[in-house]
Amino acid sequence: MKLYKKAFLPLEFSAGALACGLKKSGKLDLALFHSNLAAKACGMFTTNKIKAAPVKLCQNYLKKNKDFRAIIANSGNANCFTGKIGLADSYSTSLSAAKALGVRKDSVLVASTGIIGKRISLDKIKGAIPSLAANLSAKGIQDAAVAIMTTDIFSKEVTVKFSLGAKQVTVCGIAKGAGMIAPNMATMLSFIFTDANISYPALNKVLKECVEGSFNCITVDGCMSTNDTVIIMANGAAANKSINSGKDLELFKKALYMVCTELAKMIVRDGEGATKFIKIKVGKARNYKEAKCAALAVANSNLFKTAVYGENPNFGRIAAAIGASKAQACEEKLKVKVSSLKKHDINVEVILNTGKAEAIVYTSDLTPEYIKINAEYN
Amino acid sequence: MKLYKKAFLPLEFSAGALACGLKKSGKLDLALFHSNLAAKACGMFTTNKIKAAPVKLCQNYLKKNKDFRAIIANSGNANCFTGKIGLADSYSTSLSAAKALGVRKDSVLVASTGIIGKRISLDKIKGAIPSLAANLSAKGIQDAAVAIMTTDIFSKEVTVKFSLGAKQVTVCGIAKGAGMIAPNMATMLSFIFTDANISYPALNKVLKECVEGSFNCITVDGCMSTNDTVIIMANGAAANKSINSGKDLELFKKALYMVCTELAKMIVRDGEGATKFIKIKVGKARNYKEAKCAALAVANSNLFKTAVYGENPNFGRIAAAIGASKAQACEEKLKVKVSSLKKHDINVEVILNTGKAEAIVYTSDLTPEYIKINAEYN
Repeated sequence: MKLYKKAFLPLEFSAGALACGLKKSGKLDLALFHSNLAAKACGMFTTNKIKAAPVKLCQNYLKKNKDFRAIIANSGNANCFTGKIGLADSYSTSLSAAKALGVRKDSVLVASTGIIGKRISLDKIKGAIPSLAANLSAKGIQDAAVAIMTTDIFSKEVTVKFSLGAKQVTVCGIAKGAGMIAPNMATMLSFIFTDANISYPALNKVLKECVEGSFNCITVDGCMSTNDTVIIMANGAAANKSINSGKDLELFKKALYMVCTELAKMIVRDGEGATKFIKIKVGKARNYKEAKCAALAVANSNLFKTAVYGENPNFGRIAAAIGASKAQACEEKLKVKVSSLKKHDINVEVILNTGKAEAIVYTSDLTPEYIKINAEYN
Repeated sequence: MKLYKKAFLPLEFSAGALACGLKKSGKLDLALFHSNLAAKACGMFTTNKIKAAPVKLCQNYLKKNKDFRAIIANSGNANCFTGKIGLADSYSTSLSAAKALGVRKDSVLVASTGIIGKRISLDKIKGAIPSLAANLSAKGIQDAAVAIMTTDIFSKEVTVKFSLGAKQVTVCGIAKGAGMIAPNMATMLSFIFTDANISYPALNKVLKECVEGSFNCITVDGCMSTNDTVIIMANGAAANKSINSGKDLELFKKALYMVCTELAKMIVRDGEGATKFIKIKVGKARNYKEAKCAALAVANSNLFKTAVYGENPNFGRIAAAIGASKAQACEEKLKVKVSSLKKHDINVEVILNTGKAEAIVYTSDLTPEYIKINAEYN
C-alpha cells in the first residue's frame, strides 16, 4: 500500500476546472469530475439543520439512485440560505452538466462552498459547463483541487494505491477546508474516487467508518458548516473481484482511511490563520464518546488555542476545558502532558483515568490572522 | 427603586483592599468584605467538574452553615488544579481572616481568580490579612472592586436602593469578568451585599433565578471557568419585616435582578479585547431552553463574532450557528435581523417560528486584542 500526497485519478475518471467568474479574483472556481463508467456513490453530509441547496440535492439523489457519473463543484458561493430559488439553481446546474456530459439526468451530484446567503450566479456556471465538459482529463484533477479552494492556502490531494490479487486499486481524494471547520464535519468538501469494484453496502459502511475517524475528528474554529460534503465514487474499472467483506474489505478500508486521515490533517494544517498543528489525544476515558468529547472540548477552547499561539503553556486551560465538557473527569485522576509549544507540531495528551477508551482529534491554533480573514472576508 | 452604577455598601457592611504581592504589577490583589452582623449567605458556583479550591471551600461551608461574616477574595491566582495543598491554602486563608476579624472560624468565605495550576503564595496573603482587617470601611468597597480585577479594564459596581414599608433596603454588587466567560457562569466573581431582612429559602430562591437570567446569559469566549462564584450576603440591618414571599419578595427580586443584570452587562462590555456589545434575542422558540441554546450558539460562534468585529454583516454565519445548535430550526421558518454593525451596541434578533418562548443573551466580539491578551498573559 503506497501513499502519495498528490492526486492520481483512478482508471476511467477524468476531471477539469475553469474560472467562470464566481470568484472576483478571477481564480479557478468551477470543477467537474467524471467517470466513464457508472460509479456507485455514497455521501456524508453536514448535520447542521440549515443545509445548503447542493447538500439537499445530493441527499435526494443518493437516496433514489446508486449509480452516478459526475460531480460538479463550485467555490465562491455556498448556495445556502437561498430558499427555493437556490435549490432550483442546484438542480439546474446538475442538469446542465448531465446534458453536456451526455449522461442520465439525475446522475450528477453538486457541491458548493463560499459565502452563505447570496444567490449563486447560475448563468456564469451554465455558460461555463460546455467548455468544462469538453476539456476533461486525468491530469485535470490538479486544477479541480485548486478550483474548490476558498480561503485555503494549498490544495489538498492524496492517493493510495494497493493490490487486490492481481489487480491494482487506486483511491484518490481531494478536499478543501480552511474555516468553519468542526465536526461533524468540517466546512469542507471532499471528493474521493476509486476504481475498486466494491458492493454498495460495503462502500457505504467503510465511508461512514473512515469519515468518523478522520474528517469528524478535526476542528479549526468549532463552527459547523452548512455545506460539508464527502462523496466517494467507485467505478469498478480496476476489475478486481467485487469487495464485500473479509480481507479485501479491510484492505480497501485501510486505503480509504489513509486518504481521509491525510486529507483531514491537511485541512487542519491549512486552518485559517493557523501557525500550529495540534494533536490532542485523550486516553483512559470511560468510552470513545467521552474521550472524543473531551478532546474536542480542548480543541475548541479559544483560551487553549490562543495559549498555543502564544507558545505559553497553560495546563489549567486544558483542565478547565475538560472539566466543562460532558466527559467524566476529576482533578485527582486527571493527567495532562504537553510537548514543547515552540515547535510547529504540538502533542497534547490527556489521561482521564476513568476507563480504557481513547480518541484523537486534530486542531490548529487561534491567531490574529484567523480574525483578520474572517473580519475582512468581503 | 433607584439604580446607581457605583457601589454603596448597605448598613453594617464594610470592605477594604490592599496589594499583598500576588500581582507582579503591585496592583491591589486582596479584598475583604465584612458584615458587623451575622448575615445569611447563599452562593452559586461554576458547574465545571474541575473546581478551584475556594469554590470547594465555599460549597462545603454553605452546606453546613447559613450565617456568615465575611468574604476574602484575591486576584492574581485562581488556586485551581492545585490539589490538596491548594485546598488547605484556602482553608488557611479563611481561618486567618476569621481570626483577624474575631469571628467564628467557619464564617469567612473565600474566592480566588487568576492563573490556574500554580500554588498560591499563602504567606503573602496571611501576612496582609491583619492590616487589611484593621482598615475596613464602607468606602473600602471601591478599592475592593478594583482588587478582584484581572484583565478587566474597569471595575464593576452596581447599587439598587428601594423602600420596603418605612425602611430603605440596599442591594449592592460588584463583579469581575473579562475572559473565560461562559455560562454557567462567566469566569467571574460577584459579591452582592444587602441589608435586607430576608428568610434563607427566599434568598436562595431569588439568587438562583436572578443568576440564571443574568450571569448565566452572558458569554465572552465560550470557555467555562473553574472559579465562577456569586455570593450574596444579607445581614438584615435594614430592619424591614422579614421577606418571605409576596410583594416584598417580588420587589427584592426586582432589585437583585437589576444588580445582577447590570453587572453581567458590564462584564460583557469589558470582555477581553471587546469592541462591540452584542445583544442576541431569540424569539418564537419551542421553549426557553431552546431559545437560550440557539442564542448562545450564535454568541459563541467565532465566525459570527469576527464578522461583527469586522463590521461585515453575515446572516449566513448566524443561520449556520443556529442550525448547528440543539434548537429546532429550519430555513423556511427562520428570520434573522441585525442592526447596523457600525455602532458599538449591536442587536441581533432571530425568530425561529417554532413556538412562543424567548431568550436574550449578551456577548462581545472576537478581536485580535483578545488573542493578544490570551497569548501573552504571562
